[in-house]
Amino acid sequence: MIQYNMKLSQIAKDYDIKITNDINISGLNDLINAKETEITFLHDIKYKEQLKQTKASAVFVTKEFSNLCPKTSVPIVCENPYIAMAKTTKLFSKPLYKTTGAKPNIDKTTKLKENTALGFDTTIGKGSVIFDGVFIGDDVFIGNNCIIYPNVSIYSGTTIGDDCIIHAGTVIGSDGFGFANDGGKYIKIHHNGVVKIANDVEIGSNTSIDKAVFGATIIENGVRIDNLVHIAHNCHIGKGVIITGQCGFAGSSKLGDYVVIGAQSGVSGHLSIAPYTTISARSGVTKTIKNSHKQYTGFPIMEHKIWLKIQSKIQKLLPKDKR
Amino acid sequence: MIQYNMKLSQIAKDYDIKITNDINISGLNDLINAKETEITFLHDIKYKEQLKQTKASAVFVTKEFSNLCPKTSVPIVCENPYIAMAKTTKLFSKPLYKTTGAKPNIDKTTKLKENTALGFDTTIGKGSVIFDGVFIGDDVFIGNNCIIYPNVSIYSGTTIGDDCIIHAGTVIGSDGFGFANDGGKYIKIHHNGVVKIANDVEIGSNTSIDKAVFGATIIENGVRIDNLVHIAHNCHIGKGVIITGQCGFAGSSKLGDYVVIGAQSGVSGHLSIAPYTTISARSGVTKTIKNSHKQYTGFPIMEHKIWLKIQSKIQKLLPKDKR
Amino acid sequence: MIQYNMKLSQIAKDYDIKITNDINISGLNDLINAKETEITFLHDIKYKEQLKQTKASAVFVTKEFSNLCPKTSVPIVCENPYIAMAKTTKLFSKPLYKTTGAKPNIDKTTKLKENTALGFDTTIGKGSVIFDGVFIGDDVFIGNNCIIYPNVSIYSGTTIGDDCIIHAGTVIGSDGFGFANDGGKYIKIHHNGVVKIANDVEIGSNTSIDKAVFGATIIENGVRIDNLVHIAHNCHIGKGVIITGQCGFAGSSKLGDYVVIGAQSGVSGHLSIAPYTTISARSGVTKTIKNSHKQYTGFPIMEHKIWLKIQSKIQKLLPKDKR
Repeated sequence: MIQYNMKLSQIAKDYDIKITNDINISGLNDLINAKETEITFLHDIKYKEQLKQTKASAVFVTKEFSNLCPKTSVPIVCENPYIAMAKTTKLFSKPLYKTTGAKPNIDKTTKLKENTALGFDTTIGKGSVIFDGVFIGDDVFIGNNCIIYPNVSIYSGTTIGDDCIIHAGTVIGSDGFGFANDGGKYIKIHHNGVVKIANDVEIGSNTSIDKAVFGATIIENGVRIDNLVHIAHNCHIGKGVIITGQCGFAGSSKLGDYVVIGAQSGVSGHLSIAPYTTISARSGVTKTIKNSHKQYTGFPIMEHKIWLKIQSKIQKLLPKDKR
Repeated sequence: MIQYNMKLSQIAKDYDIKITNDINISGLNDLINAKETEITFLHDIKYKEQLKQTKASAVFVTKEFSNLCPKTSVPIVCENPYIAMAKTTKLFSKPLYKTTGAKPNIDKTTKLKENTALGFDTTIGKGSVIFDGVFIGDDVFIGNNCIIYPNVSIYSGTTIGDDCIIHAGTVIGSDGFGFANDGGKYIKIHHNGVVKIANDVEIGSNTSIDKAVFGATIIENGVRIDNLVHIAHNCHIGKGVIITGQCGFAGSSKLGDYVVIGAQSGVSGHLSIAPYTTISARSGVTKTIKNSHKQYTGFPIMEHKIWLKIQSKIQKLLPKDKR
Repeated sequence: MIQYNMKLSQIAKDYDIKITNDINISGLNDLINAKETEITFLHDIKYKEQLKQTKASAVFVTKEFSNLCPKTSVPIVCENPYIAMAKTTKLFSKPLYKTTGAKPNIDKTTKLKENTALGFDTTIGKGSVIFDGVFIGDDVFIGNNCIIYPNVSIYSGTTIGDDCIIHAGTVIGSDGFGFANDGGKYIKIHHNGVVKIANDVEIGSNTSIDKAVFGATIIENGVRIDNLVHIAHNCHIGKGVIITGQCGFAGSSKLGDYVVIGAQSGVSGHLSIAPYTTISARSGVTKTIKNSHKQYTGFPIMEHKIWLKIQSKIQKLLPKDKR
């Protein structure tokens, strides 16, 4: 994710801070994942324990909590750390497309059909087929024996393993839906992360998978995704997960291995679903599911067997002769 | 919207009417917006007050209500004015693509990547980037500093302001979903309107925004739209509105400024939502919301706090030991 | 659907069976539709009556039910016939694209715009328009007076009648969502069927229609489909059906003539909906509807008038002063 080195003084120039040690900052990251050379931010007090343990060398933070920063982190005091973060993502964003780099490295056993676009520093393995009208950005890696159907768009930085199939019209790596509200003006959060798709993944047509803010949106081995599915930034889809048509996943939701999601269901952001959970069709998951191997239904969700009983009770709200 | 001048006699030739003053008709429009040179229609008696005030020079109307037409409007009496309107939209529809016109006028600071299509009489401002595989029809205007990602399709007549971002696979200006049922045969309503997108708008991937029947589908300044969203013909999306993933808006729905719509929600046609309203995820809005600054949830929607209480009551339909 | 002739011994080589009459097998099919030259499978005992009447010359079947096979069908005994079927679909799958065949046969009155892809043995009739960036695979037939808007992807084997309109970004013929679970490893079910679209069909933008496992996904005459709709493999959409935005249909669902489906609704697989049924927006249909001309609403669905009464009762769970 490291894109540019930038002086801390340059990043912090709009904030009221005296830089005594003008170190190089290599990137912006969240509190947990930030490295020693990165900057981070605290935008919600519920993450204060993460702040205390961050390795970041600088932190956007309100005055009130600036004393919680570890000694190794310079506090950059600001009124709204979330807005500061959003503005800073722009400083670390890559250019939209490279104007120079290595020519695409495509194995000679891979078939490129017509009117494809291939960015610089892109690699495709053996025996893959890239259909007509496919767009592949810069720094993309695609493995062996993949099939990319027509008019698929793969944004820069995406990695796709072996034996993957992506159906027509699907988009991998579009920007996540994120911005900071600065008094009615929305400041774009530049998504400087990527999408990483492992091996043996099949993705249907007209599906959208957004790239991460920081780090990666991850699709593990063996996942099956149907048509018209929306997977937001920073989701983590576990091994062997099955996602049926028109489901949607908000940012940073985490699905355990072998979860099955019925069609037209939705999952809220920043929660996790235990392995081997089944979510029935048309359900809305708004809380973390901790126990594996159960089935949930409805909105709000409840255990499937409870949902069935409740539906029966609801029917009985009407007298028998009126049903 | 004016496309052709056509004699009233030509438009009305299939109807039982004697034309005494064979004026030129410049277009077809609804009762309220029709100009003096246009024709309109009354298909539902609930619009009779609009009929009385229409400026149109001719009106498709049933015999029963023909006497309500203002003196300046010639009634064209027909059995089914909606079918007459549908048939007439064809007369005013533009050709699918121009075969002649001005070459695209693209500022030299704008980057056009490969395999793009650009129609006649199309203008793109400064500093924009048009990615590979993008289709841009005739008479399209795109402003400065826009980014149009790969495989986006922008139909003829669309206007897009400055600083807009449109992600891959999105379609702007497809025909609205409209037809008149003529005894089981559907007569297409040709959508002769356009889509107008203002400044600083970001639209996610694989989203569809339909053009208007008459006039324009309008997206105001600062709007943020996520992936896989459906915006039907003639919607009006107010300033700063936030629309999250997989929401859908039926024809002519109107969202006030700074409305926020949670994911996978739907809004019925021909209604309006007051500014600063929040609609929770997975809600279905079927009536106009008049009071601003409130949150609504559910289907049918209710105030969020009521919805929470009702969910709690529904749970209690089951005895405690069975939940 | 017949693609290759293959010896029964080759298909059955991994199974414990002695082939006494090594016939040619022309394809794989379901119990009902299998021809005398085809192989089939019994994966659920509820289809045992179909097994007894199958014309297939061989059947994947468990030991327990192998005695139910008709005399004309050789049982190929296996532990899991569904997995055997999935593996066998691969044997009958076509190559991803043809490397030889007849050049596309496009009537000279049809307009092909730029950057289109056309497979071998493809035919397009008179007066059609194929916009920029459209992909059309091998063995596709498109009739007269069709409009295929930009960046549409039409997979090999699709047939489209006369007077059809397909809006931008739509995908016709992507693989259905199907696989057999072999101990956590998903075996792809190759979809060797096609999509057949009749005459006078209009399909919105960014919609996905999957091809069939065997046989065809069928869209009958006069159907209207809106944007972002998901139609899974082997669906049968009857004449004049109206499908509004963002609806989804699971595999093998069958809609009778003139059914109307409100926006954002879903229909489960392997069920049928009687002609002239209306499904309200945001409904979930999980059971077959046998009586025509009624309206259903909700999830689970119920008659619309009942749903209205129940919603009213639900409201009354809260005391009047708290609503």
